[in-house]
Amino acid sequence: MNEFELIARLRPRLPGNASVVVGAGDDCAVLASPGPGRQLLLKTDCVVEGVHFLPDTDPAKIGRKALARALSDVAANAGTPTAAVITLGLPDGFDPVRIEALYDGMADLARRHDVALVGGETTRSPGAFFVSVSLLGWVEEGKAVLRSGATVGDALFVTGELGGSILGHHLDFEPRLAEARWLAEHFDVHAMMDLSDGLAGDLPHLLAESGVPGAEIHRESLPIRRAALLRAREGDTATPAVAAALGDGEDFELLLCVAPRDAVPLLDGFKARFPDTRITCIGRLTANPGVFLREPRGLTPVTRGGYRHFAG
Amino acid sequence: MNEFELIARLRPRLPGNASVVVGAGDDCAVLASPGPGRQLLLKTDCVVEGVHFLPDTDPAKIGRKALARALSDVAANAGTPTAAVITLGLPDGFDPVRIEALYDGMADLARRHDVALVGGETTRSPGAFFVSVSLLGWVEEGKAVLRSGATVGDALFVTGELGGSILGHHLDFEPRLAEARWLAEHFDVHAMMDLSDGLAGDLPHLLAESGVPGAEIHRESLPIRRAALLRAREGDTATPAVAAALGDGEDFELLLCVAPRDAVPLLDGFKARFPDTRITCIGRLTANPGVFLREPRGLTPVTRGGYRHFAG
Repeated sequence: MNEFELIARLRPRLPGNASVVVGAGDDCAVLASPGPGRQLLLKTDCVVEGVHFLPDTDPAKIGRKALARALSDVAANAGTPTAAVITLGLPDGFDPVRIEALYDGMADLARRHDVALVGGETTRSPGAFFVSVSLLGWVEEGKAVLRSGATVGDALFVTGELGGSILGHHLDFEPRLAEARWLAEHFDVHAMMDLSDGLAGDLPHLLAESGVPGAEIHRESLPIRRAALLRAREGDTATPAVAAALGDGEDFELLLCVAPRDAVPLLDGFKARFPDTRITCIGRLTANPGVFLREPRGLTPVTRGGYRHFAG
Repeated sequence: MNEFELIARLRPRLPGNASVVVGAGDDCAVLASPGPGRQLLLKTDCVVEGVHFLPDTDPAKIGRKALARALSDVAANAGTPTAAVITLGLPDGFDPVRIEALYDGMADLARRHDVALVGGETTRSPGAFFVSVSLLGWVEEGKAVLRSGATVGDALFVTGELGGSILGHHLDFEPRLAEARWLAEHFDVHAMMDLSDGLAGDLPHLLAESGVPGAEIHRESLPIRRAALLRAREGDTATPAVAAALGDGEDFELLLCVAPRDAVPLLDGFKARFPDTRITCIGRLTANPGVFLREPRGLTPVTRGGYRHFAG
């Protein structure tokens, strides 16, 4: 099967939406502008076989994950996604049935968030199978929540649970789009990002972009994912549960900061609006430089041993 | 060098423009909307080592080509590019100096077309080095020139020259952005696309999207690139010059159709406005099905032996 035959099989699977003027099949996709008073969001993200998924991973979950990662970034800016284009890098002798399943998994998630898939391209990739997603979205003008607005004293929150994502969450996670928009509409969220490299790896980026020297995380309040706890109990001493919650990657949860006075109203309001999603105050930002874990015996420095996509 | 250290070296190299609200460094780039009465263009395109460039290709030319291919697609819709995000797939042990050179080559071309580079991501890619570019642009509402507007009887034009791109043109070509916008502003261009898979491979797409049965190409008017002629003279009988002009890929020239009455004014106007760029009427669209080459001895069918990115 060649590139054009594959594309002909994939095109009918691509969902549209009200923004699409011309979808897949022309040189570019043509899309309606998001309208007056709005700004655009643009993000690209890529998953590679052997790094982000395995040769035997269910292809529908590969497609789902590839799109969900980019949706999580639009959520981190409190935006609304509209349309995506996909690049497939295909090894020789690829199985078209697997590629169709990959697109079906991606299209399911796209439909649920009213995201149009408006084309892309396939290319031969002799050494690696990869899926790159580029996603367009929008926010009301000036309303993108950035990494750069945090200040000393802010309360630090995280949605969901952390650690052990590799046991399944990284393929099944729900991008926190509705939660992020609700938070930004109801509170003055100073800074927000999504957790892809682990709390210990990502929090320093938020601090650096905001010019805040440090943070203190309360060990006892860390929401540890059941998978991380089970692994620790099974004697995986290399990754005790707290270390997994700090260092494991691919949580795809929101990390956000608000003024301390907003902390309790935020917890109450969020629990009422999203009863099935946890949100936890895990600490605060400090003038004291560095990231520390507050434990019963005192403060322990948290090294930046976040999950790294590579060490070159 | 890890991902974050590499990104810190690359960020200062990224050009901005008036559309950038928040560039590289946050979860998404934030961009100004193109303004009232305009629509968005979105395109993604990828180059892979061993397919689109070689291990010893000058990295500045790899970066340049990766962006130029996407710019060529925006040109094909008669659009104006604004901002791009880049995904780098890096094998283990990559050379950061080569990656910086790649970005410098891309940034040079971006600056010349006032395109902002607003971030992207790097990922480990054990088996393949690749560069994926996603490009945003705009057109006046309803003014995107598509592949689908051609009709029987249209005159068929091509910019520049065809064939032999592999000898250098594929790394050095100029995306025809100014030419495409000028053509669309001054003439009723029925359909347009850029040539990436060779005239014989791409013309059938334009015909199919337009619902036009066929086309006749005049062999004597084909503008053959000097590289293709030289190769043919050197006895490369596998690719005689006309076959190269029809079948070689990566010309990145514009293929366009106008009503026959516009043909002469278009030639005259274009030559006056772009004296250094060829434009040639190479034939016409027909009710007779299939693509044919008109030669002194009659009509020869043109097979769809265009350059294929892969045969799976």
